Order: sequence, then structure tokens, then C-alpha cells
Amino acid sequence: MQRRDFIKGVGAGSLAVGALTGGIGSAHAKAEYKWKMVTTWPKNFPGLGTGANNLAALIGEMSGGRIEVKVFGAGELVPAFEIFDAVSRGTAEMGHGSAYYWKGKSEAAQFFSTVPFGLTAQEMNGWIYHGGGMELWTELYAQFGLVPAPAGNTGVQMGGWFNKEINSVEDLKGLKMRIPGLGGEVLARAGGIPVNLPGGELFTALQNGTIDATEWVGPYNDLAFGLYKAAKYYYYPGWHEPGTILEAMINKKVYEGLPADLQSIVMNACKVVNQDMLAEYTARNPVALQTLITKHNVDLRRFPDDVILKLRALSEEAVAEIAQKDEFSSKVYSSYKKFLSQSKEWSGIGELTYLQARDQA
Amino acid sequence: MQRRDFIKGVGAGSLAVGALTGGIGSAHAKAEYKWKMVTTWPKNFPGLGTGANNLAALIGEMSGGRIEVKVFGAGELVPAFEIFDAVSRGTAEMGHGSAYYWKGKSEAAQFFSTVPFGLTAQEMNGWIYHGGGMELWTELYAQFGLVPAPAGNTGVQMGGWFNKEINSVEDLKGLKMRIPGLGGEVLARAGGIPVNLPGGELFTALQNGTIDATEWVGPYNDLAFGLYKAAKYYYYPGWHEPGTILEAMINKKVYEGLPADLQSIVMNACKVVNQDMLAEYTARNPVALQTLITKHNVDLRRFPDDVILKLRALSEEAVAEIAQKDEFSSKVYSSYKKFLSQSKEWSGIGELTYLQARDQA
Repeated sequence: MQRRDFIKGVGAGSLAVGALTGGIGSAHAKAEYKWKMVTTWPKNFPGLGTGANNLAALIGEMSGGRIEVKVFGAGELVPAFEIFDAVSRGTAEMGHGSAYYWKGKSEAAQFFSTVPFGLTAQEMNGWIYHGGGMELWTELYAQFGLVPAPAGNTGVQMGGWFNKEINSVEDLKGLKMRIPGLGGEVLARAGGIPVNLPGGELFTALQNGTIDATEWVGPYNDLAFGLYKAAKYYYYPGWHEPGTILEAMINKKVYEGLPADLQSIVMNACKVVNQDMLAEYTARNPVALQTLITKHNVDLRRFPDDVILKLRALSEEAVAEIAQKDEFSSKVYSSYKKFLSQSKEWSGIGELTYLQARDQA
Repeated sequence: MQRRDFIKGVGAGSLAVGALTGGIGSAHAKAEYKWKMVTTWPKNFPGLGTGANNLAALIGEMSGGRIEVKVFGAGELVPAFEIFDAVSRGTAEMGHGSAYYWKGKSEAAQFFSTVPFGLTAQEMNGWIYHGGGMELWTELYAQFGLVPAPAGNTGVQMGGWFNKEINSVEDLKGLKMRIPGLGGEVLARAGGIPVNLPGGELFTALQNGTIDATEWVGPYNDLAFGLYKAAKYYYYPGWHEPGTILEAMINKKVYEGLPADLQSIVMNACKVVNQDMLAEYTARNPVALQTLITKHNVDLRRFPDDVILKLRALSEEAVAEIAQKDEFSSKVYSSYKKFLSQSKEWSGIGELTYLQARDQA
């Protein structure tokens, strides 16, 4: 995970804007609602920032220009981590971020993004849309005058780039790794030293030995960042962000003031972008991975089983502790945990067993 | 796979209608477009038929009632397997089915549903939306005056219910199994006897020994069908339908006659339903599986590795032969095959490796 740090370190001037963005202008004249969308991303950042652009464009397109949404990158209107409050008080009508940024408001928020060894992207959609997750998320954000919606997913993220081989649990001790959030919390419990650095400093820090390892997102974003030039080994699998949901949030009063058709358009545009971003990562990651392997000779490695088991046990502890913070977090944890447990059983004869049958000798 | 046979054998009178369906009525008075949607499903059939209902309701809701879509079950307006021609000639404005039903029009159509040992649901979305699949599908259907769109996915389907144990490739010889389409073609190549039976006859045929085995969909639909009462063993994994896309098709002239906002609403409603149906199966399957195991003591089994390897090799042959039928099928096969090959590599350090790390000891 990296988004917390995008803001400071990453320039985005040369990056392409989502293809849909051009569609709004023509309908400009008849806009009944002019909205500002504040985001936690640098404007036009690939995948995440362009997803926000696509969301704005879709709302404009489906509403025939009745709603016009102007996207602001992090810091343009408000700083990245003030968007929650800004939309809550109505400074902006909507925002695009990810719920784990708001764990200061409620620890439970993290379940609506991703947690280590948790649900995959597809399973998150099952829990959110048909397993009770959306109702809980809506209840939580209503306390802040917000309406939430999933609006993007990166899919499973990678375990990171390493300059030190991990052959045992012992090798995690003293490991200086850039890994924020719950993943960092778990690394610390394993004896490692989680470091927080902005995205733009990762390359240099890894190259000059300030850190031993760093995670980022996955092949698509990692290739663009050039991390393969600074690291000896590319380790896998990812374990700390198995299917990170990006969110849209809309000011509740503004949303409730819309006619029913526009309410439906706004919420369904979020659903479309939620699916589309995951599809984009699912298409771009394989191509980028191939480039990393064949062109840049990246050395793919696997964590030994005992390391995975240790990280998994520590993750379960860390996630369970969220439930102890307050009553609402406990309720969300129960719902999530039950869905995860059932999903594992189904995965064990469904998705996982299929992928093994298809991909392994 | 079962949908080809729903039509004859399955009553649907008692099944719930999708929650959204109620929303259209209020906007009835101002409908500018009154459309008929013909489907290959019995009306209101869970997951598939209710998905079609949701699609119609969403279009009504987002358009503020400007488009009103009335859904017809199989046989109500035209028989199930005439919906392609009916929408093509404009008897109905749109349809809901699955592309492999139209292999008589082009063998390539099968790639836009699912093929044995092919892409998962998530990967299909990657290929379709960001990997060139949509362009090919659009090109194919344009020849028939149709605009296609993904509009639902069952996720990975199960390998089926068996009364005869499969301990080796030899045990497939002479196996009478109800398995239509490419799956049946592969079973025949392995020496088995694929049987085609309507859904409503499966239970009795399995119980009285007319067939040794049958596939259907997955836990959610299989539980409702009561197949656990007729079969000794529940085998896995599924291999023949790893992520079946349901489709919407719209008459091209009708579509092109819509203003841009309504075009966008129709196509995006399809995207919403595409994601929603997969989320529904992802949430319902785990719960149904748990009921099958704990309440009905279903005996889960696994095909031996040599059986999987044999089925996989035969599937690759069968799928490759589609490419030889005509030039367009060859073009689609090339695109699909390249995406599949890259996806396997990515899955091998992404989704598959993550699920192993999370779910296995």
C-alpha cells in the first residue's frame, strides 16, 4: 500500500487522463448541479486518480450533463487526509479515497478497504453488496453525514521488493521495510521495523540501503515506478492487501436532495468504476509482470511456508484487536469474519482449486 | 452448465423477483421508449432470470422512466434459442442470454461466455473491458445488427454430482454424465458419454441410474435443486465453466437511435448487473456450501491429478479446434489465448498464491 504517501512524492504531470474524461464538456451548459470531488490521489495518477476521473465523467455522461463533477487532486482544494471532513461539512460534494485512511474516525473503517489475509476483491464485492457489508458501512458514514460507495479495487497487491533474502522468520527481525498500516503493524509484531516513506523516496531509500525492502502496489504500478532497478529480489505473494477497495463518499444532505434518477446514476456510476478499475488492474498486471520478467530479469521469489504462517497468525491477532476498540468495530468484525470463514471454505473447492487445476502441473 | 435446458424443465412460479423490479412502475407514464427484453431463462429464475429483471429495473430507474423495459421469460414471446434472431430483426429491442448459445452463428461466440480451463470471472472482465475482448465481441455481433455487453457472471461452476467414484482416467470411460457444450465434448474425448437432459429431469435420472453424474451450476443453485439427495459424491473442482458471462444484446439500430445519455445508461446498467450477479453468487455459494456440508452431509471429493491433467489436455485440444473453423474465430482465439497465458503467470504470484497463503496450512 502506498496511497497515503502518493501525495507528497509523486508528480503526475505526464500521465494520461482516463478516456472518458472528455465527455463532460459538451453538456456543461445545462448543469443543474456543479459538484467538486476531492481526492486523496495526485491528479490523474494511473488507476486510482484516473478512476476518480472516470467516475466524474460517467456521472456527467449518464445524467446528460445535469450533474457536472470537477475533480481535484490531493492538495488542490484540501489536503489528501482532510477530504473526509471536507465532504462531511459540505466544502466539497463528494470525495474519492480509501476507507482505511479514516481509522482515526473509527477503527472499523479499515474493513471497508482491506485487511491482511482478508477477503479478495471478488469476495469483498460479495460481502459489501450481498453479505451485509454495505449496510454497516452506510451506518458508519451516516454518523459523519456521508454516503459511502465502493468505487475501485486494485486486486491483490504484491508482497514487495527486497534487497535481503527472507529464508526464515528470523530474517524478518530487524528488517527495515517500508510498509504502512496494518501490514506494518504485523511486521513490527514479527520483529521487523516498519518505515513510512512517501512514494517518491522509495527508489532512493531502497537503493542506498536506508530500507531493506518496500511494498508498493503490483506489477502495473511497480513497473512504472522503476523499483526493479533498486531491488535484488521481487518477493511474493502479497499478504497484506488482498483486494483493496477505493471508495467514493458523497455528502448525505446533497445526496438526499437529488431526484431518484440522479441518486441512482451517482450510486451506479460508483459500481461501474468499482468493476472497471479491477478489470484494468487485472489486464495491466499480467502484461507488466511479463515485462518485468523477460525484459528486466526480475527474480521472483516466494516467502517460505513458515514465514507465511507466522505473518498469518500475527495478522489474525492484529485484525481481531480492532474488534476490541469499540462496539461498532466489534459488529463489523463479526460480520467480516463470518463471511471470510465461509469464503475460505468455498474458495477451497471453487476459485482456489480451479486455479490449481488450471495453472499447476 | 445448464442454461440450455432450463427452459423445458424448470418451473419458477415460487421464486423471488429481484428487489429492484418494483421501481419502474412509478415512471411508467413518461416512458419515451418501451422495450421488450427476451431471455433464455424461465422468468425470475434465481441469479440468471432475476439478473435480467435487475437490468430492466436499473435502466428504468437511471433513465427516470424514459426507457421502460418489460422482461419476457423463455417461450413467452419467442423460444429461448430464438432470442438472438428476434433481437437481430427487431422483434424485441433487447435480450439476455449467454454467447455460447450462438455458436451456430459463429464458433467464436463461445469465447465470450466461457471455455474449459479458461479465464476466471475476474480475468474475463480484464480481457473483455481492457484486453481487446469487447472490441472483438462488438465486431462479431455487429454483423447481426446487435450490440453486445457482459451482463452477469456465475463465477466458477462446480464439477458436478457423481454416483460413481472417479479414481483414474479409466473411470471416465463409459461414464454417462449430463454435461452439455464444450465440457461434454471434452468428456467424449476422454471416453465418456455426454448426455443432454433438461434441468427438471436431472434429479430423477441421477437417482434411477439413467446417468452416473451431472453438473449444474454451483452450491447456490445446486442446493435449491436438491441434487444432494440423488448423488453419493460431490466432486470438485469445476473445470468446464470457470467464469461464465451472461450477456445482454441490444438491437443496433434501436441503440444507435438513443440519445447519448440513454446509450450510456443502458451500457452502464449492463456493467452494474455484470458485477452484481457475480457478487451475489460469491455471497450465496459459501452459505449454500456450508448447508450442504453441515446439514446434508455432502461428501466432497477431488478429481485425482491425472484426471485433471487429462481433462486439461483434451480441453486445450477442443478449444484450439475452434480457431480452425474460420478466420474470425482464429482471431478471437489468438487474443483470448494470449490473455490467458499472461493471466496464468500473474495468477501464479497473485491471486492463486495469495489464496494458498491464506487458506492452506
